[in-house]
Amino acid sequence: MATKWVYGFAEGSREMRDLLGGKGSGIAEMTRLLGPELVPGGFTITTEACVAYMNADGVLPRGLENQVGKALEALEEAAGKRLGDPADPLLVSVRSGARVSMPGMMDTVLNLGLNDESTAGLAAKTGDERFAWDCYRRLVQMFGNVVLGVPGERFEAQIAEVKVARGVTQDVELDAEALKELTARFRTFVDFPADPREQLMMSIRAVFDSWMGDRAVSYRRINRLPDSWGTAVNVQQMVYGNKGPSSCSGVAFSRNELTGGPDPSGDFLANAQGEDVVSGVRTPRDLNELRDWNPAAADQLWEILRKLEAHYKDMQDTEFTVEEGRLYMLQTRAAKRPAQAAVRFAIDAFEERLLTKAEAIATVDAEALDALLPPTFDSTAHYKVIARGVAASPGAAKGRIVFTAEEAVAEGGNGTSVILVRPFTEADDVAGFHAAVGVLTSEGGKASHAALVARGMGRPAVTGAADLEVDLKLEEARIGELVLHHGDFIAIDGTTGTITVDDVPLVEPHVDARFETLLRWCDELREIGVRANADIPVDAIRAKRFGAEGIGLCRTEHMFMAADRQPKMRRMIMAADMAGRREALDELLPLQQADFEGLFEAMKGWPVTIRLLDPPLHEFLPDRLELHEEIVRARIDRSPELGFLESEFERVRSLDETNPMLGTRGVRLGVMHPEIYEMQVRAIARAALAVRQRSGEAPRLEIMIPLVAFERELELVRARVMEVAKQEGLRYGEDFGIGTMIELPRACLIADKIAGHADFFSFGTNDLTQAGIGFSRDDVEKGIIPRYVEEKIVEVSPFQSIDEDGVGELVRIAVERGRSVRDDLELGVCGEHGGDPVSIKFFHAAGLDYVSCSPFRLPIARVAAAQAAIAAPRGRKTVARVS
Amino acid sequence: MATKWVYGFAEGSREMRDLLGGKGSGIAEMTRLLGPELVPGGFTITTEACVAYMNADGVLPRGLENQVGKALEALEEAAGKRLGDPADPLLVSVRSGARVSMPGMMDTVLNLGLNDESTAGLAAKTGDERFAWDCYRRLVQMFGNVVLGVPGERFEAQIAEVKVARGVTQDVELDAEALKELTARFRTFVDFPADPREQLMMSIRAVFDSWMGDRAVSYRRINRLPDSWGTAVNVQQMVYGNKGPSSCSGVAFSRNELTGGPDPSGDFLANAQGEDVVSGVRTPRDLNELRDWNPAAADQLWEILRKLEAHYKDMQDTEFTVEEGRLYMLQTRAAKRPAQAAVRFAIDAFEERLLTKAEAIATVDAEALDALLPPTFDSTAHYKVIARGVAASPGAAKGRIVFTAEEAVAEGGNGTSVILVRPFTEADDVAGFHAAVGVLTSEGGKASHAALVARGMGRPAVTGAADLEVDLKLEEARIGELVLHHGDFIAIDGTTGTITVDDVPLVEPHVDARFETLLRWCDELREIGVRANADIPVDAIRAKRFGAEGIGLCRTEHMFMAADRQPKMRRMIMAADMAGRREALDELLPLQQADFEGLFEAMKGWPVTIRLLDPPLHEFLPDRLELHEEIVRARIDRSPELGFLESEFERVRSLDETNPMLGTRGVRLGVMHPEIYEMQVRAIARAALAVRQRSGEAPRLEIMIPLVAFERELELVRARVMEVAKQEGLRYGEDFGIGTMIELPRACLIADKIAGHADFFSFGTNDLTQAGIGFSRDDVEKGIIPRYVEEKIVEVSPFQSIDEDGVGELVRIAVERGRSVRDDLELGVCGEHGGDPVSIKFFHAAGLDYVSCSPFRLPIARVAAAQAAIAAPRGRKTVARVS
Repeated sequence: MATKWVYGFAEGSREMRDLLGGKGSGIAEMTRLLGPELVPGGFTITTEACVAYMNADGVLPRGLENQVGKALEALEEAAGKRLGDPADPLLVSVRSGARVSMPGMMDTVLNLGLNDESTAGLAAKTGDERFAWDCYRRLVQMFGNVVLGVPGERFEAQIAEVKVARGVTQDVELDAEALKELTARFRTFVDFPADPREQLMMSIRAVFDSWMGDRAVSYRRINRLPDSWGTAVNVQQMVYGNKGPSSCSGVAFSRNELTGGPDPSGDFLANAQGEDVVSGVRTPRDLNELRDWNPAAADQLWEILRKLEAHYKDMQDTEFTVEEGRLYMLQTRAAKRPAQAAVRFAIDAFEERLLTKAEAIATVDAEALDALLPPTFDSTAHYKVIARGVAASPGAAKGRIVFTAEEAVAEGGNGTSVILVRPFTEADDVAGFHAAVGVLTSEGGKASHAALVARGMGRPAVTGAADLEVDLKLEEARIGELVLHHGDFIAIDGTTGTITVDDVPLVEPHVDARFETLLRWCDELREIGVRANADIPVDAIRAKRFGAEGIGLCRTEHMFMAADRQPKMRRMIMAADMAGRREALDELLPLQQADFEGLFEAMKGWPVTIRLLDPPLHEFLPDRLELHEEIVRARIDRSPELGFLESEFERVRSLDETNPMLGTRGVRLGVMHPEIYEMQVRAIARAALAVRQRSGEAPRLEIMIPLVAFERELELVRARVMEVAKQEGLRYGEDFGIGTMIELPRACLIADKIAGHADFFSFGTNDLTQAGIGFSRDDVEKGIIPRYVEEKIVEVSPFQSIDEDGVGELVRIAVERGRSVRDDLELGVCGEHGGDPVSIKFFHAAGLDYVSCSPFRLPIARVAAAQAAIAAPRGRKTVARVS
Repeated sequence: MATKWVYGFAEGSREMRDLLGGKGSGIAEMTRLLGPELVPGGFTITTEACVAYMNADGVLPRGLENQVGKALEALEEAAGKRLGDPADPLLVSVRSGARVSMPGMMDTVLNLGLNDESTAGLAAKTGDERFAWDCYRRLVQMFGNVVLGVPGERFEAQIAEVKVARGVTQDVELDAEALKELTARFRTFVDFPADPREQLMMSIRAVFDSWMGDRAVSYRRINRLPDSWGTAVNVQQMVYGNKGPSSCSGVAFSRNELTGGPDPSGDFLANAQGEDVVSGVRTPRDLNELRDWNPAAADQLWEILRKLEAHYKDMQDTEFTVEEGRLYMLQTRAAKRPAQAAVRFAIDAFEERLLTKAEAIATVDAEALDALLPPTFDSTAHYKVIARGVAASPGAAKGRIVFTAEEAVAEGGNGTSVILVRPFTEADDVAGFHAAVGVLTSEGGKASHAALVARGMGRPAVTGAADLEVDLKLEEARIGELVLHHGDFIAIDGTTGTITVDDVPLVEPHVDARFETLLRWCDELREIGVRANADIPVDAIRAKRFGAEGIGLCRTEHMFMAADRQPKMRRMIMAADMAGRREALDELLPLQQADFEGLFEAMKGWPVTIRLLDPPLHEFLPDRLELHEEIVRARIDRSPELGFLESEFERVRSLDETNPMLGTRGVRLGVMHPEIYEMQVRAIARAALAVRQRSGEAPRLEIMIPLVAFERELELVRARVMEVAKQEGLRYGEDFGIGTMIELPRACLIADKIAGHADFFSFGTNDLTQAGIGFSRDDVEKGIIPRYVEEKIVEVSPFQSIDEDGVGELVRIAVERGRSVRDDLELGVCGEHGGDPVSIKFFHAAGLDYVSCSPFRLPIARVAAAQAAIAAPRGRKTVARVS
């Protein structure tokens, strides 16, 4: 049987998303739900057809054209009109529609079916010659641009010339004659096919081709979508938002798209087509003004939005058109929303009994919650607001001005904070969003491209700042008298829409009551624990505030980096003999003890996992090049200090390693220099006992030995730790346990042997990624990984989300082998992956007991852990070990 | 039932080696074979008793003392004498005996059972008072030294004093009275127990303790023997080689222990006990002189040696004693022998129908064949021989003189070649042998400690150089007028026994006809192929001579290191743009092509595996510190060159990586800079076609992509290689294949995916060890690994023999997963492990098709591969792919 490539809207449903794309299945579902009188008819060409087309290097699959013809006939029958009919032509739109929405990334052609004759027919039938020619003009322009690749500026230039010639300034002032002239001018450089069938097939190809266009590919990279999905194509009968003053086009969210509040929100533009609204070229009107403009249509729309939301059990983002007073729904999809809106929707939807708790949690994009964490302008600070715009994407950002996406990538990639300032943004600017810390535009509303993309990426954005004049040629932004240039400082707050050139202090966010509620639900549902990586008391306190069930990683070396510690640490390392080393260690001991006491106070009753010294010693030593410069100068000056400097240099050099990541660090330090770990264990024990004595309670200590590769390393160091702890009066089992980080491939492979000497494993997935893939993070993130993403070798940096096939396989092996000898082995992860939702899902499935992440990522981790449990419950909940 | 800790000699056999140790099972077997009249009676305390004793921290296991008592009674019965009988005492020796021989490493007590009374009885019974007191004196001395730990010098000082007092110079000149006095003097500082049973039990303990003594532990480290084996203890009725001029002690090899020639060889000393022969303190007589000294005993011994060899099917190393003309055999064991002797024995034994080919091959220590490979003095060179000694261990060595093992370790460890020069050596010097490139002694024969240990370790040695006077106090070696000091240059040839201070050229060894025969047998029996790592034509030619079945690894970067290439390579790397880079590459192409042509000429018809550029580019750049020094100087001088230097430095620095081993190298270079691989593939293709055109034949090329971690890396680079090869007219499949190195843990884990794009895998076990264990070879071999060996964390460096549990597990996983999708996937190894016998055994078992190693290691690899197949045949032979 021949493959079915084409489905009428009445044949589809929401379950067919993979085949029909988000838009196609949405329209089909909406047709079922609202009836054909509210949804213009049409059909969908499947994503499979697109894949077949790609695989055949641009040859349309057999049978497709035939099936399109049949579906078109059915549509003509239902509409009572024929495509290209000179008397009363059927017009259609051709739109892309992938499995998930990729706003503005792919191509669309509207008003398809017109030519000289049918335009005349349309004019006669509607009695509106201007409307007919506006449609035709638009078709030739879009077809020329989208299908034939004629640059947009050539059309804009003609429009501008004709406007000047006719002495008008607005597009709407152009009359039928002017539009005729414009169309004729366009056709001098657009090889426009008169045959509507040819128009249709060419447009379908253009949509398929746009799937592999640079913009779409770049968008999928950033959003981690596979190229192999392909896009569907939707052919739909046109309705006209540009059919005079009683027509409009708009986008409507079922709730407030910024706050999640209960009232619908959105934008609309009278006498315009849909593309005008989302492009941001004209600033649209707020959706609420629709009530004044056409109350009946507004009521009907409000009702439809409720109905759609109840049906889809999620907040909806719709497109609608009012044609001469009559409402049509063109599209519906789950609304992208900023974190606070997502949280509010989840809470409200549960309270409205729309969703269960689990369903409500599942609607939240955990990663997007990051947007709740960037700071905002300090409301108590004094600063001068130089302009205001639309609060388009929450969070504040400060940085240097750049005017193009290329500049943003070049300068933002260097580590400079840059703000991308544009009149409006287009799909081509997406890479610039990623590189910038914030986005500012002079045009466009909450539904503009800039706003949508910024929210999607969690970048603060202010849009439609009308007082701002952006001159791309001069690379200037003017606000009244003030002229800002490339590289000037600017600050924006996307939560409030304010703009300033003062260096405003930023304040940390707080977790509001709704978010707290959501997190509490997540805590009820999740099956793995959540701990924090924290090295100093202030981090521990913040971690507790964000819900940490203990500390999963305390990096004791951070305590040695402080200004008062480093010289002592350096003296210890440079000491010529054991006596000198012990002396320096004796000085460090009380300092480290004091740090631990602060940490333990904050975490009384909770587990605290302390990693003994991990990094290579030379990290604490002076910069080699600086020292070398001193030596060269001393040589030239014949300075008496030369000998001393040279011997210092020799010592520093002798500690230098070719590949420090694979050198003398972790447990190897513990084996080579037992006195360091001894001091640390003494400080830990004394701190714990001091805290217990003061407050009657101490944390449950977990002493962690890093970088173990061999069973006997752990056995040896464990025995020494035990002995020192015993000397200090700390009781093994009751007061503390000993475990190890699993961060080398060998450790994973011999996890069964290691488990015999460990109370717990904590996966150090950063190091495991480095060794497992052979990727030095310091070296590969600057060059190799971006290139690898580009070349599709990896989808995303393995340091961002765990590499499941390789590093994840090592984790699975270690879990299996470790638990095979010790059923109660506690398993956690303390790399940065512990705060990444995609990785958390993996760790949940791999059977880990907890994840540990930076305090700011805790809310995300709690939500992600709950979502993992909702999606695939293990039925085994890790109870946090509170004493 | 109580554990049986003690076995009479008649109860044991050679199969009980693990339980009774080598010596115990050997004596038992010999007793069976030769009858009790030739082997003095006794019993063995098991290795299990020693292990139980160690585990109980030095408490003798229950029942042991009782069982010893019973065995002693049985011995007394058979001998018709009683231990401690004042009238006619039974005397016994107490000797250690581990599973494998550890010559001189552990302790021995002779003449046990004497005290004041029984000495008088022995004197009366034998009518030889001097003999009785000499025995007693020796017992007190050995017991004091070995059991009670009194330093040897204290005894030597007393002997010296008594000799002076009596006006004699030789030990044998001391009469009974003098020996009595000496014994009395010894007893002033030796707390000697009169009770023979107490003597016995204390001696047994001392032997057990010596197993964990420093000397023994150090020996086991070097020889990779586990501590957990323990030693057995043999108690044997004494026979006396020191019972006057018709008595002697000796060691006898069943064949020439140096050459493997058919005549027995060895040493003996008249009127001496066995310890005197092996200690090297007195220079013994050649075994062949035994025929003159006692023809009947010599005939009998010769016959026994034949019998033993036939029985054991291996060359034997025996100890014997002639007591007043009557021969006793005390011990037999497989003879340690230098490589050429091992080879000759194997060949002769097969020809004599003593052994099958497989049995013959199994008698050869593959690793020891290394001794055939060190060079010898160039016989055509002119140099002055300053002295001659015994050719004790083959091979020539040149280096700086050191006089102590400590100096050897300190200076040899630094990479300096040192020759250890001693009067004689003792067990404490073993670590020095390891660190030195050669050993020279003024005393001792072929069976001296120095000779045995040097041969065991494959170090060239000359012993018994009588003209050489070594003064350890002054740290001088004198030969006539010539005085040599610490650090002076010296050269020795252990194959000929010559010594010189001239810097003689050394010549490479040739593989003699017997060795060729042995290797041919190995080639018949082995199941895996053997290829060579070779980068330049001269290596390829040598490789073929040593039996390489192709090249398993050609490191193309070595071609860029040559003086005429490096500036071009540097220019390519420093080029600011692609044009500059291509220009430099165009210049490199013909040079690289010429190299390949040479290589291909040498390997026509055989596979040649070429690895595309692997190391990080900055390895080809100038030294950073030197450049920095120039910059500092230019700054001070305000030199106009400063700007240029700084930009050079910036470029060098930008290529610098924190962990280059895990950075931009291998296939990552191929992805980032496709033009480099493109040039290389072009050079390979053109060279292959040129060679084919000239000679009608070319090698079978295997183009190897290094450091693959992701499936798509290989897919991408493979496609580019294919394309360039096609452009050049090279046919995939017929002319070349494409494969990858498996040298990252991730690659092992996804080997099934990678195998879909690879014709072969070559395991890069150096890198796999680095990443798998997290050990940077450059960094860990200097400090961590020696310490880890010491702390028993590893038995041996994982870079020497493959770490089977960790890295080996990765190899096993990769083999399994790779072959699961592609049954004919060719699998090899090209790391240094490819030439290590222990590792080769592993690779054989893991199912690899071939190993590749340095040309000099090829003979070892061929033998090791055959032995692996003999020990555990796979039944699947890899046929070398000769076109």
